[in-house]
Amino acid sequence: MGMNYIGIDIGGTGIKAALTDDSGIVLETLKTPTPAENLNDLIAAVSRLVAKFQQEVTVSGVGVGIAGLLNARTRIMETSPNIPCLNEVDIEKQLREALSVHVITENDAKAGAYGEWTAGAGRGRRHMAYITIGTGLGCGLVLGGHMFRGTSGYAGELGHTVVEPRGRPCACGSHGCLETRVSATGIVLTAREMNAANDNTTAESLYEAATKGDRTAQSIFEETGRYLGIACANLINLLNIEAIVVGGGVMASGDLLLGAARAEAQRRAFPSSARDCAIVQSQLWPDSGTIGAAMLARDTA
Amino acid sequence: MGMNYIGIDIGGTGIKAALTDDSGIVLETLKTPTPAENLNDLIAAVSRLVAKFQQEVTVSGVGVGIAGLLNARTRIMETSPNIPCLNEVDIEKQLREALSVHVITENDAKAGAYGEWTAGAGRGRRHMAYITIGTGLGCGLVLGGHMFRGTSGYAGELGHTVVEPRGRPCACGSHGCLETRVSATGIVLTAREMNAANDNTTAESLYEAATKGDRTAQSIFEETGRYLGIACANLINLLNIEAIVVGGGVMASGDLLLGAARAEAQRRAFPSSARDCAIVQSQLWPDSGTIGAAMLARDTA
Repeated sequence: MGMNYIGIDIGGTGIKAALTDDSGIVLETLKTPTPAENLNDLIAAVSRLVAKFQQEVTVSGVGVGIAGLLNARTRIMETSPNIPCLNEVDIEKQLREALSVHVITENDAKAGAYGEWTAGAGRGRRHMAYITIGTGLGCGLVLGGHMFRGTSGYAGELGHTVVEPRGRPCACGSHGCLETRVSATGIVLTAREMNAANDNTTAESLYEAATKGDRTAQSIFEETGRYLGIACANLINLLNIEAIVVGGGVMASGDLLLGAARAEAQRRAFPSSARDCAIVQSQLWPDSGTIGAAMLARDTA
Repeated sequence: MGMNYIGIDIGGTGIKAALTDDSGIVLETLKTPTPAENLNDLIAAVSRLVAKFQQEVTVSGVGVGIAGLLNARTRIMETSPNIPCLNEVDIEKQLREALSVHVITENDAKAGAYGEWTAGAGRGRRHMAYITIGTGLGCGLVLGGHMFRGTSGYAGELGHTVVEPRGRPCACGSHGCLETRVSATGIVLTAREMNAANDNTTAESLYEAATKGDRTAQSIFEETGRYLGIACANLINLLNIEAIVVGGGVMASGDLLLGAARAEAQRRAFPSSARDCAIVQSQLWPDSGTIGAAMLARDTA
């Protein structure tokens, strides 16, 4: 009989939980809103989800992906912009005490990368990047056959690498970060700059228009894809990786974005390095993060 | 009695060789022009340098850094733009046969990174980047306590990451690569764009003018430093490294360039990640590459 693990993704609005077997197959999922302002409520919400699964099976470990800057040495969540109750908190320790089971925390994009690497589109790759495009742009790196975290666990902030020095202002305080272009927010800004947006325009509504043949909407996704392609070329030339796996809510737009990204990366990257690297869609989306968190729990238990 | 190693750097115009002890201390250096067009002449030139050192001491290994794209799996030098006789050649095997001693080849910037990491400004760092600014811009990465080569050995092409999508055309075929701004060539182009260059202007003459108080020349180095700072911020946010070590001929301009780079990186990078990373000058320049090649020979012998 195999072991079971729980993977949890704590986002700004919702908590998602998946019960998996020991190969990352999802057996069941649960959802609940995020009590973003109150730490006790947040811990109680996670505990309820875990308890529900524990009524059915014995759980060997719980992995938790969280949007924010997690210090891999101190285990403190340094800043979690959309979940303020987690700022400066050792949520791993608190959950471990609440749940009496093995708990491991990770940045949500790194959890997604771990999922695609162990059970998805990046399986078996020695060097890969996972990019998740939603409201913002997250990234996790696997280098040399290991999750790459850097000195303090902050590595992977591809969304805050500069692609235009005098580009759009970014929430991080810099200008021209990739995220200001390649994200749901960036896509709407691009539409606005092209006078193709009204107050109700969203990345989703633009995608719907694009699939219905709207040329302006299509060109917005192509332009966004070109910026994604520049970031891919940069990853390819800097890291000579084998795969770039792209997921996230915006990837509903699939090949519209990825086609343009692949073409731009091809134009920009060294041919030898470009040949080494496949730019592919996520296999596990929307479960990359929960599956990855469960697999992290498996591999650290 | 310690062991001795030879580190060799084959550039487009000259071959430099250093005899080192087993801690990377340089005991003696030699130079000879590069026979860039004839492979037999090139091998003979390297053999003569090695033989001269061998008259004095027993040599335990020879490391060779070469400008070009070295395939780390096949050991073939795929392209070496300035040393055409090395294109598609397994120079490691040919030198091993000619010299009857342990020979290891490496891309020249990676050899420099290895030097700074084992015996210079990056000693003891788990994650670091070495950037060498000369005619072009080279880079080598140490990640997770190992030289990082990527899938085929091509990693480290920071000079060909894009910092301006519609920037200057680059020899690699892309536009807006870092190297088009941060290199001797790029500095002269910047001067030209500012109408501050004549036919005899070089990065060196501009640096001399800058040190004599020429405001225009100073602003050219500050502008170049800002682009270097953008690249540093990108490395810091993407890789959360501990150190960026900067060397190369252009670094004669020292703090003029690095001061601007540090300020720009500070403005751009996440504060937590920026705190983790020191941006420092090379300790071994101009011997980073030869010392690194010798240390590679030591560590692979």
